[in-house]
This record gives sequence, structure tokens and C-alpha cells, in this order.
Amino acid sequence: MKKEIRNIDISKITNPNFVKELTYDEILLLKDKITQYIIETVAKNGGHLSSNLGVIDASIALCRVFDFDKDKILFDVGHQSYTYKILTGRDLSNLRHKNGVSGFQKRSESKYDVFEAGHSSTSISAAYGMAIGRDLKKEDYNIIAFIGDASIANGLAFEGLNNLSFNQHKLIIVLNDNEMSISKSIGGLGNLFRKISNSTSYMSAKTRYKTFMQKTKVGKKIYTFTSAIKNKIAKMLIPSTIFDNLSLKYFGPCDGHNIKKMEKIFKKAKKMNKPCVVHLKTKKGKGYKYSEIDNSGSWHGVEPFNILTGKPLFVSNKETYSKVYADGVYQLMKDNEKIILITPATMKGSCLEKIYEDFPNRSFDVGICEEHAITMALGLALEGFHPIVSMYSTFLQRAYDQLNHDIARMNVNITLLVDRAGTGGFDGETHQGSFDESFIYDLPNSVITMANNKKTCLDLLKESINNHGLFVIRYPKDEANDILKYPKTNYQDWHLLNLNSDSRICVIGVGNFGYELFELIKDNNLNIDYYDACYLKPIRKDYVNQLLKYDEIVIYDGYANKSGFALHLENLLIENNYKGTIKIFAIDDFYYPHMAFKEQLEISNILPINVFNYLVKK
Amino acid sequence: MKKEIRNIDISKITNPNFVKELTYDEILLLKDKITQYIIETVAKNGGHLSSNLGVIDASIALCRVFDFDKDKILFDVGHQSYTYKILTGRDLSNLRHKNGVSGFQKRSESKYDVFEAGHSSTSISAAYGMAIGRDLKKEDYNIIAFIGDASIANGLAFEGLNNLSFNQHKLIIVLNDNEMSISKSIGGLGNLFRKISNSTSYMSAKTRYKTFMQKTKVGKKIYTFTSAIKNKIAKMLIPSTIFDNLSLKYFGPCDGHNIKKMEKIFKKAKKMNKPCVVHLKTKKGKGYKYSEIDNSGSWHGVEPFNILTGKPLFVSNKETYSKVYADGVYQLMKDNEKIILITPATMKGSCLEKIYEDFPNRSFDVGICEEHAITMALGLALEGFHPIVSMYSTFLQRAYDQLNHDIARMNVNITLLVDRAGTGGFDGETHQGSFDESFIYDLPNSVITMANNKKTCLDLLKESINNHGLFVIRYPKDEANDILKYPKTNYQDWHLLNLNSDSRICVIGVGNFGYELFELIKDNNLNIDYYDACYLKPIRKDYVNQLLKYDEIVIYDGYANKSGFALHLENLLIENNYKGTIKIFAIDDFYYPHMAFKEQLEISNILPINVFNYLVKK
Repeated sequence: MKKEIRNIDISKITNPNFVKELTYDEILLLKDKITQYIIETVAKNGGHLSSNLGVIDASIALCRVFDFDKDKILFDVGHQSYTYKILTGRDLSNLRHKNGVSGFQKRSESKYDVFEAGHSSTSISAAYGMAIGRDLKKEDYNIIAFIGDASIANGLAFEGLNNLSFNQHKLIIVLNDNEMSISKSIGGLGNLFRKISNSTSYMSAKTRYKTFMQKTKVGKKIYTFTSAIKNKIAKMLIPSTIFDNLSLKYFGPCDGHNIKKMEKIFKKAKKMNKPCVVHLKTKKGKGYKYSEIDNSGSWHGVEPFNILTGKPLFVSNKETYSKVYADGVYQLMKDNEKIILITPATMKGSCLEKIYEDFPNRSFDVGICEEHAITMALGLALEGFHPIVSMYSTFLQRAYDQLNHDIARMNVNITLLVDRAGTGGFDGETHQGSFDESFIYDLPNSVITMANNKKTCLDLLKESINNHGLFVIRYPKDEANDILKYPKTNYQDWHLLNLNSDSRICVIGVGNFGYELFELIKDNNLNIDYYDACYLKPIRKDYVNQLLKYDEIVIYDGYANKSGFALHLENLLIENNYKGTIKIFAIDDFYYPHMAFKEQLEISNILPINVFNYLVKK
Repeated sequence: MKKEIRNIDISKITNPNFVKELTYDEILLLKDKITQYIIETVAKNGGHLSSNLGVIDASIALCRVFDFDKDKILFDVGHQSYTYKILTGRDLSNLRHKNGVSGFQKRSESKYDVFEAGHSSTSISAAYGMAIGRDLKKEDYNIIAFIGDASIANGLAFEGLNNLSFNQHKLIIVLNDNEMSISKSIGGLGNLFRKISNSTSYMSAKTRYKTFMQKTKVGKKIYTFTSAIKNKIAKMLIPSTIFDNLSLKYFGPCDGHNIKKMEKIFKKAKKMNKPCVVHLKTKKGKGYKYSEIDNSGSWHGVEPFNILTGKPLFVSNKETYSKVYADGVYQLMKDNEKIILITPATMKGSCLEKIYEDFPNRSFDVGICEEHAITMALGLALEGFHPIVSMYSTFLQRAYDQLNHDIARMNVNITLLVDRAGTGGFDGETHQGSFDESFIYDLPNSVITMANNKKTCLDLLKESINNHGLFVIRYPKDEANDILKYPKTNYQDWHLLNLNSDSRICVIGVGNFGYELFELIKDNNLNIDYYDACYLKPIRKDYVNQLLKYDEIVIYDGYANKSGFALHLENLLIENNYKGTIKIFAIDDFYYPHMAFKEQLEISNILPINVFNYLVKK
């Protein structure tokens, strides 16, 4: 009698161990349900699609072999943990939105999350630390770092890999190799994975062996003798992976969509009492027709979309800042052969694809290697080129030392486009882009800017390729205002947008939020002057002098912590003996949970309307 | 007739190409002269000894093969460039001192320096950028990155290696493998180099081959046949290095003290038109009896010493802060099994050797991997341990993202000992430790402290293992005051050291320089109050209130840029409506060249005596 296939209600899950009891037919059903659920959830809320669809099978296989009531899993970045969230009983309906579950692992959500990330390549080092801790406590459970092929090519992951072989603590690294990652794995390591997977490493060894052997008579003879067993010999003789090089036991490659095979290999890994690597080959975007055929990474992180058509739900006719700067860089590169573009795996997110197509010799996607991106830019600058490096604010954190020790100290000229400045929005705490302004402010030979409209963007970009050292242009994930009559922005300019001869209060505002406040002030005829501080550093002395006349100076930077522009302007005022009131509205020293940008600002009362309400009471 | 051996006057060198004309006998003479000169110079000025002695031969060989009038060399870190400096005509007599040559490469010193560093592992990425630039310009010269085995194990170097194979620009990496580096190369990569060098990789393959073959009759036969040519077969079959994995051509290993052999191999490398690695085996400290037998790294970076005895010239009977904290950590680890020590190759510099000896299971030297050190600490903290991470301020810059995204955001408890806070002293710009205070100040869940005496050190250390999140203890490369009657320091305490009921001015001072100012104030009976701000963050509200009564508040932090403690205290005063004068003395946003610490402070008029002179005039 055929066993009945039980229907699993994924909203009723409480413990991931239930998958151990399922038949493979039931697993097929579960898999389909999860696929549907993830597609529907991401279509509604936005989020990471392809990476999650690619690891549904692997997540199920892991839950069948391991017991996450005691075993621990660290998802690298964590953006591929949706299936794991579902299998550990979480409701994704409000994913990434206020009070919903996070798009990454989060300890406060579930006891099944023991780790958190959002930046890549931290899982191996953290898992290594945990493994040492476990062994010092003489406890016994498995620790698994689940990491993608692009993440493992980052320097931190390499440091972890290199170090963990030294102490030989039990630890399983699951390499989720989808040959794509955010856009494409770049670099020798990626090639190596390809090689291992396609067995060309083994093949080429075989070819070399053959060629050598056939040079001599005795060789020919040996070759014939060995041909029967040559596969096995070659396999034994070739320590072909970087993992072998680092004394790490390697299992694979294994089809990451074959649950039975994965169970077998995970069981083997579980038995090891030293670090090992399980290499899975997966297909990103599996189970949804549009993401399955996507080669460009368009379905990696997505905004809400229509499931049937694959088209975005909301289309704006305004351009984003990313787009405006991308177009500006395109034009610069067309006009000037000395301009080079470098991005660490953010080409797509920052709308730079067309540059890569049209200027293939002068654009470099270095993968998730922020440090390398900056130091490589140094090399190009030393040869007389002008590198433009485009990076998200939050990821720039990883290149702080390179900005300081390599770029600012050697005082070379580069343009740094800092995308996603401000709070982290739906991505939340791990993607907060509020720190760069202040950590760059301290660096000698640096300029920091932020525009509130398209025209200023292009003025800044043009100025940035003059000899100003490290020229930073920050911008938010937002649309650029298109203000035709906006004044031209020369080096160090601020713009006095609202001028009343008798104002006793002024606002020094930054970017879109500042501009929104300016409009509120203007529309309501408040007797308050408004300065657009597009140059946040250096601050021209005549502006400071000009400000001294006001009774109150309000500094409003909704895109950064106050330690950057705000405290430095305050300090200049104090140095100039200002005795009036200084009031600062800026991002708090606080990690804002995932929700809309404006909801985050509301937490700290720093929305344009909050500042406006403060001003109205004056 | 035997050719006469010419005597080379190294003070007369102008162009490194002269070595191309020398006979090998003359080179031997030159080598000895350079060895003597370096020993004498470092004995007098302090500096890096062992690393420089180890690469005299390699530097000469490089100058014989390459033409540095057009070819470019990037010394990784640059602390091993003394011979190159000599061969390019620089006078080392005032090495590392004011107006003398730097201990690292420096462009302003010589046209033969095209690169600068001080932090490790930047050379590959920079050289890669330069190679791209050269090829875009269609120029033709060699670019050489000269990097040690410890530096190449850092994540940034790996990112560079991984990325450079992608574009195949001509570039030579000289791997200076001395099996020691700052203390010892740690990790799988180090083991791999050992393996390559000792041919154990090949050996073990051979053994496996033999074992397998002898299992069958036909195998045995083949084994016998192949034994004659087995070396060559094995060599061809084993793509044994990580460089092969990354598609980089590999040459070596080569004796790094055999100039003839090196010339041969460099000439081969020169002919390659793609990236390649030349692996040199060198002996650190070669040519000086004490450094030759040093296994602990004691002769890596040294203070002035007596050449005959090898003993330091200046011995103090006061303990350094490093020593005080090292002893404190020792005691903590003895008392509490949950304490773990992690250092990135700074064990020796921070006096922590005894801990490594006595607590081998709870102390981890992870090599030059600052990022990994911090994220590994996260893992241990998540398992309930309390990691103490010890690192130099300037190198901590490389772990900024890990402090932010991993430690502060996840709000785990670790103690961070930040050694070498302040300007960079004789090491100069690249070692400036003035940035950490301000970049950590912005991080939620962080505490920042600095003591001015031994007793406070121990109070801070003890407090740090309570649940305060990221607890940072900064200290300078200086001796700790031993003040018996110093008051106990509880959490967030400041100490009012000088109190006059009618003072109109107060100083909020930090660390030793602050204490020196306090002594000047006291000895000269100035009517000025002095607060020792050992807790720089958070600042207790009652102190701020207490300060409001003064007409002038002087903030003196000679160990950090003003953006850290100084601007945040100023901001609190302003928020509390303070209308008096605020005067800040702190490290400028400026990279101070190499000279004594006090000479550096003098540049910015922030010596204790400068602040005192300012106060006297009040």
C-alpha cells in the first residue's frame, strides 16, 4: 500500500526536525510550497529572491541531517536564510517591513538564529571562534558556516579559512557555489571552483601526464599500463583545491538540488572531527521562470514585482541618484580616457552596467573585495589615472584602512561614490550607511559632498576629478530632485536657498531631506534662512562667519551620524566664539531595525517634518 | 691576471644600476658593507633589523636584474627596504629620526620610491592597479611586489592575488619566505609554504602514489618502472601551490641568499607576460649573531642596542603600559577561565609572550589578520567567553567594519586593548594611532577609556570584563606612572585631581600627557582645576553639569584627533547651553612624519608645556 503523502502546513511549523520524518515525496511537496511562498513573499515585500530559491533544497537537506536544537548554523550574509526561517517556524508575511522578520538572520527572532550578518564573509571566522569556544567547554554539537562562492573570495573569509586549519576544531563549511553570486564571481578562486566542478583541473593534469609520458618509449608503455586506473591515480595524486592547500578536508562537488546526495555528504562531514568543506553546486533563482534564466543578477535583490509578468510593481518616472551618477560617470569616461571605474560587486545595484559594456577596459568589478578595490585604485592613481570607486556606504566600512593608510595618507586623487548613505531601510541594522561621513571626516586630504538635486550631482562629479585628493560624493537610495534653476555649484559652495534679511534662525541642511525641509519652510513662509551644504568638508570660512549673526543655527543631516559634518561645523562656530544656540538633527548612534527609511528617521524625530515642527515653535 | 676587487663607497651611490657591473667577489664585499651599515644604523637609531638583514642579497639581485630607473618596486610594509635605500643612494645615518630617512619607502625621499606603506599586504593590489595603468598607457616596464610570507596571508593580499589572475597583466610577486615574519606565520598558508619548501607536498604525493600502486600487482610493476622518472612525473602532476590554484605562474623555491640563482630566476620572471610569483627562501637576521639565532621575533623591530652585547642601550626601571596591561591580562586569565586572548601578530610588541606560554589553549595569535581576529572574537563571545583582543591602534583600522558590524551591532562583550595610541613616533605617518578613538566613538554599545597610571589600568581592565559591550582601553607606547595614592576608578569615573574652590578655568585631560600638564599646573600653583577623564565614553551627565560653572573649559587629548572625545564633550556642553569658552588641544587632522612623539606634538603645539603656556597667559 502506498503511503499517503501528508500535506505540510508551513504556517504551523515550530521545530525544523519535522523534515526528518518526511518521505521524499512529501519533501517534494514541501519544496514546492516553500518555493511558492518565497516567490509570493518577495513579490509583495521585495527582498532577496534568487539566492533564496537556490538553497531551498540545501536548507531542507541540512535540517534533515542536523539537529538545530543543538547544532548551529551561520548563514554568511544571511540573505539566503528564508527557507531556514520557514523551517524554523517564522512567518514571512511581513518580511523586511516594520515588525516583520528581517531579511537576514536575527537572534531576537528565533532561538534557531545564533548569528547575524548582512556584510559578507564573516561566517567562517565567527564559526571558528564558536568552535574553539565549544571545544573549550567540552560540549558537542556541529557548527556550520554556509557561504557562497562570491563571499568566500573576500579577504576576511580567506583569513578565516587560513587560520582555522591551524587548530583543527570540528567545523563544517558549506560552500554554496552557484557560479553567479551578486553578479559574477570574479577572480582566480571563482575560476578554480569552475575548474573543480568541471573536472578540468583533473583533466588538464591528465593531459600533461599523457603528453609527458608519450615523449619517451618507456613513458608510452607506462601510460598504456596506467590508463585503466589513471582516473584513480590522478585523483589521488592531485591535491587540486585551495582547501587541500590549506589542509582542509574537502567533500564534493555535490548537486545542491539533490537532497538524497546532500544528506549523504552532510552525514560524512558530520563524522569528521576537524574542519571540512562541503562543496554544493546550486542554481540561483531555481523554481521561478524569470530568475532561472537571469544571468545578470537582476533577480538577486528585488523590489516588489508582479509574479506573472516579472515586472516591478512600482515604476517611477524620476531617476534615482544611482542612475544620475552612473550617467554622469559614463559621460566623464567618454570624455576622458584617464577615468577608471572600480566596483566591488555593486555594479548592478548602482546602475553601472552600461559602463561595463561600453568601457570594458576601464571598468573593473573586483567582486566582494572592498579593500582591494581601494588599494587597486591607489595603484591606478599612482600611474596618473583618475579612479572612480563606487561602493555602498555600509560596505565601505570594510575599506576604512585603505582609505586612510593608502589613499588619504598618500594624497592621491580618487572619486569615491558612496551609494546608500543614510539609515539601512528595509535591510535594517547591517546595512546602515550613516558612519562613513564621520570616519572620512577625520582623514586629511579629503573632501565630502552630498547633492540634493541632479544638477549639483553633475557639478560635484565634474569637480571631483580635479586634484582634491579623496573626493567623496555621498548619496541615498532615493530619487534625485530635478530642479532646473538650481545654482551652479563650484568647489566648496553652499547655496543660500531661502534668504530673509531679518531671519534670526538658519538651517544648514543636507541632501533630499534637507531640501524637503526647505520646501516646508518656504511653503509656510517661515522667517528662517536655509543653506544647502553640498560641501560638507571642507567648510569655507566665510560661511562660518556669515552664520555667526544668527541667534540659532540648526544643523540637519539626515544621512549621517552627527560626528561628521554636524560636530565639525559646531566646532568651527565655537572656535569663532559663537554664543547663540546650536541645534543638531542627525542620525542617532543607534542601529535602526529594518523598516522604511522614513519610519527609521521617525524613531529619532529627524524627519523633515520633525525639524519643521521644532522650527515652527520658535 | 686576477681582476682587482674594487672597494665600493656606499655613501657615494647615486644609481642602483652600478651593481650590474660588479663581480661576484665585489658583491660579497658590498654585501658585508651593507650588513655592517645596517647593523650599526639600527643599533644607533632603532628600527627593523632582522627583516632588513634577511633581504640584502635579494635586494642586490633585484638591482642586478631590473632597472629601477624605469622598473618599479613596491616593498610590502616597506620595513625591509633599507638595502634598497642604500643602493638607491640614501644616507641612513639619521634613519627614522627627524629629517632623516623614513623606516619605510617614501616617495618624497627618492625617485626610486614609487610606493609607500607601513601596514602590510597592500603591495599586490597596488601593483595590480599600477600594472593595469601601465598597460592602458601601453608602456613597458616591470612592476614588482616584494612581500613576506606573513603579509601574504592577510585578506587584502589574498584579494589582490585572487583578482590579479583575472586580467593577466604582467606583474612579478616576490614572496620573501623567511618562515618567521613578525613572530611566526600562522595558518594553513604558512604550512603550505613550509610544505612546498620542504617538498613534503611532493613527498606525500609520492607516498600516496607508492601505497596505492603497491596494492595491486600491475601497480607494483608500474611503480618500479616509474621510479626512475618519478620526481619529474610528480612535479608535473601536482599543481601543488595556491598560486597554481589561482592561475599564477610559480617559480621556486629559490635560495634567497644565492645571488646567482636569484638572478637566473628573476630573469625568467622578467620574461613572463603575465602575473607570476617568485618564491625566495630567506633567513631573517642573517649576518648578525644575535638576530640569526632569534626565533621569537625579538630582533624584528628593536630599540637602540649595544652591537657587541646585543643588549638595549636604554633600560628604564618603569614599566610600559603594554607590560602593565599584559600582566593584568595574565592575572585575569589565571582567575577566570572564560577569558581568551587574541592578537594579530603583535604578541611580542605588546609583551604578551608569557600568556601564550602559560595559557596555550586560551591565547590565539592569528597572524596579520586584524579582521579575522575581531570576528573570531565575536564567535567566542557568542559562546559565552570574554575575548580580550590586543592590537595596535593603527592596525585596528583594518578591523573597523568588524568592530562595527560584528561586535557593536551584535552587542557582545569584548575587551579591546588598543596599544600605540597617539602619533606614530619614529615609525611616522603610516603608524599614526590617532584615529581609533573617533571611529569607535560613533559605535553604539561601546566604552572608551585611557588611564594615566598603573592603578587605573588595572581598574579599567577589571571593569572591562563586565557586560559593557565593546570595552576599549587605549594606551600609548610609553611608561606607566606609578601613583600609589591614585583614587579607585569605578565605571564612568573621572578624577578631579586639582581642585580650587574659585577656579574659573578647568582642564579635562587624558592619559600621560594630561597628567604631565596636571603636574605643571600643580607645581606652578595655577588656579585651574584638572579632571582626569579616564572614561572618554560614555561621559557621565553629572560631570557635564559640574563643568558648566567654569568660564573656560580646556579639553586636552594628546592621543587622538579631536573628533573623538573632544568634540563629543564639546557637544554635550553646547547641548547643556554652556556659553563659556571651550578650547581643544588634540592631534591635528594631519599625518605626522617620523620623529620622536614629543617632536610630533610640538608641531601642533599640543605638548603639555604648550597647553601650560596657554593656561599661564589666562
